[in-house]
Amino acid sequence: MLSWAAHSLRLGATGCQGSWRSIATIISGNKTSKMVRERLKKEVEKMASQFSGFRPSLVVLQAGDRDDSNLYISTKLRAAAEIGIEAKHIRLPNTTTQEEVLQSIMSVNENPSVHGLIVQLPLDSVNHIDTDLVTNAVSPQKDVDGLSCINAGKLSRGDLSSCFIPCTPSGCMELIRQTGVSVVGKHAVVIGRSKIVGAPMHDLLLWNHATVTTCHSKTPDLPEQVGRADILVVGAGRAEMVRGEWVKEGAVVIDCGINHVPDETKASGKRVVGDVHYASASQRAGYITPVPGGVGPMTVAMLMENTVQSAQRFLLKSRR
Amino acid sequence: MLSWAAHSLRLGATGCQGSWRSIATIISGNKTSKMVRERLKKEVEKMASQFSGFRPSLVVLQAGDRDDSNLYISTKLRAAAEIGIEAKHIRLPNTTTQEEVLQSIMSVNENPSVHGLIVQLPLDSVNHIDTDLVTNAVSPQKDVDGLSCINAGKLSRGDLSSCFIPCTPSGCMELIRQTGVSVVGKHAVVIGRSKIVGAPMHDLLLWNHATVTTCHSKTPDLPEQVGRADILVVGAGRAEMVRGEWVKEGAVVIDCGINHVPDETKASGKRVVGDVHYASASQRAGYITPVPGGVGPMTVAMLMENTVQSAQRFLLKSRR
Repeated sequence: MLSWAAHSLRLGATGCQGSWRSIATIISGNKTSKMVRERLKKEVEKMASQFSGFRPSLVVLQAGDRDDSNLYISTKLRAAAEIGIEAKHIRLPNTTTQEEVLQSIMSVNENPSVHGLIVQLPLDSVNHIDTDLVTNAVSPQKDVDGLSCINAGKLSRGDLSSCFIPCTPSGCMELIRQTGVSVVGKHAVVIGRSKIVGAPMHDLLLWNHATVTTCHSKTPDLPEQVGRADILVVGAGRAEMVRGEWVKEGAVVIDCGINHVPDETKASGKRVVGDVHYASASQRAGYITPVPGGVGPMTVAMLMENTVQSAQRFLLKSRR
Repeated sequence: MLSWAAHSLRLGATGCQGSWRSIATIISGNKTSKMVRERLKKEVEKMASQFSGFRPSLVVLQAGDRDDSNLYISTKLRAAAEIGIEAKHIRLPNTTTQEEVLQSIMSVNENPSVHGLIVQLPLDSVNHIDTDLVTNAVSPQKDVDGLSCINAGKLSRGDLSSCFIPCTPSGCMELIRQTGVSVVGKHAVVIGRSKIVGAPMHDLLLWNHATVTTCHSKTPDLPEQVGRADILVVGAGRAEMVRGEWVKEGAVVIDCGINHVPDETKASGKRVVGDVHYASASQRAGYITPVPGGVGPMTVAMLMENTVQSAQRFLLKSRR
């Protein structure tokens, strides 16, 4: 849990004489994800010692050869290896058909030694492949990305114990937990309603007993809505759209955005910013995630968490 | 669409001289459900004439013999008969087992001449039956109650065109449509997060592009939340809990509550009230549903709508 000590600073020398001004405590995704991964490593070691070398196993299925997908997959494989999860990368050529992708999925679904299966999106093939069909072909018991209809249905209706929660919102909840701020009875505002961030984030906050407002591109009074949020989670995909002056004093601000903006001072000519204007928001928020180093590293950690959880469920079932 | 004419009355003779005072227009579920049923009757007649006597078919599966269930089922069967839907009632004894219920469901799932299957809840059996298991055994293509995880998942993630929407929220949307008030960009507040009312109502309003806040038993500031609602849907299950003074002037108020309260002036010793204090709320709302005669009659109408839609999807598929 983060300490409140760093939260309030007396800024006597900055023109705010005699008044208390809050500077947000940074919620570090780097630190928190490391904690999660270390905990998982211990759990995996325990499993291995209790069940004669048993290891959680994850398959990452890729179609094609996109650079960004390759990078994401290598990050996942590395995290798995560090924790002791056996991870296998299946790469189908970019000439693969929908039928071939479905066959690969079926074969992994039927393999009892695999506990988690994710399909790296977007699928990169010269042939048309229906992403929803593919996502829903993954066995709900191995759908560690939590993207199938069945897992979404369970999450949205409050059956959290038997489903897999999508990794980004799950990571956001972990970061909120780190602040020590209880979600129960708080007013949470989620900006965005995507399948992988906004919509499941709403569900998670709701079933952790927050009063939740979902805002999106059709919301006409976003500043007012944001101003009422004790907990704000932003997954809008627009660089620095949430301004600091909108944020409620002391709020917990979780920024899921990853946007590249031009920056001539950088060798690459660009830098990464979130969906929240960090400099101004950190002057009002109680807690805030940075970008990068906030939500980003949590996503991979929670994928590992889901894989370990799936393996634990498998063990529980097989011992019955 | 309801007329605005009845909405504003100059109440010069009531002590409000010179001021305009709004009296809510009543949104009649009796009238609206009749309209829906008449439209469906025409659609069914059209199907029958185009496809040589084809009729939508609905099965209602019951376990046991509860009085309330019997009443609900007879209402559904009568509505189906009036529209021209072939409805069949399967009643299993209250000694039935989970396995027998599941077998009945499987047999209806596999029967290509049946387009809709609902399991009347609660199941009334001396044996333990897992309601979730039973609900999810219904084929998603025949789940006209919209209660399976797959249909909930689609609705919650915005795939409205391929799912079945639970009947009560669907009826609420139809009543909101009748007011002529557009949902897009409005602030909607839903009280309650049940699987059959609150949670799917949130989804429907969200994917019809309202900004949606879900409140529930852990919401500490319900009056303030209600006060911000352009559209308010209440499914809390508590008699007259929403007070008129909480309601925003001109709001659309949809009351899903059905509560029995003592009333010595009635022969039965009780009367039915909603979750909204109607007398005071109708002084502030722009539109309001009465109880009874509001949401209640819509639920059965929308079940019929789902059954007809299922039959239409079946025809479309079989003609491909």
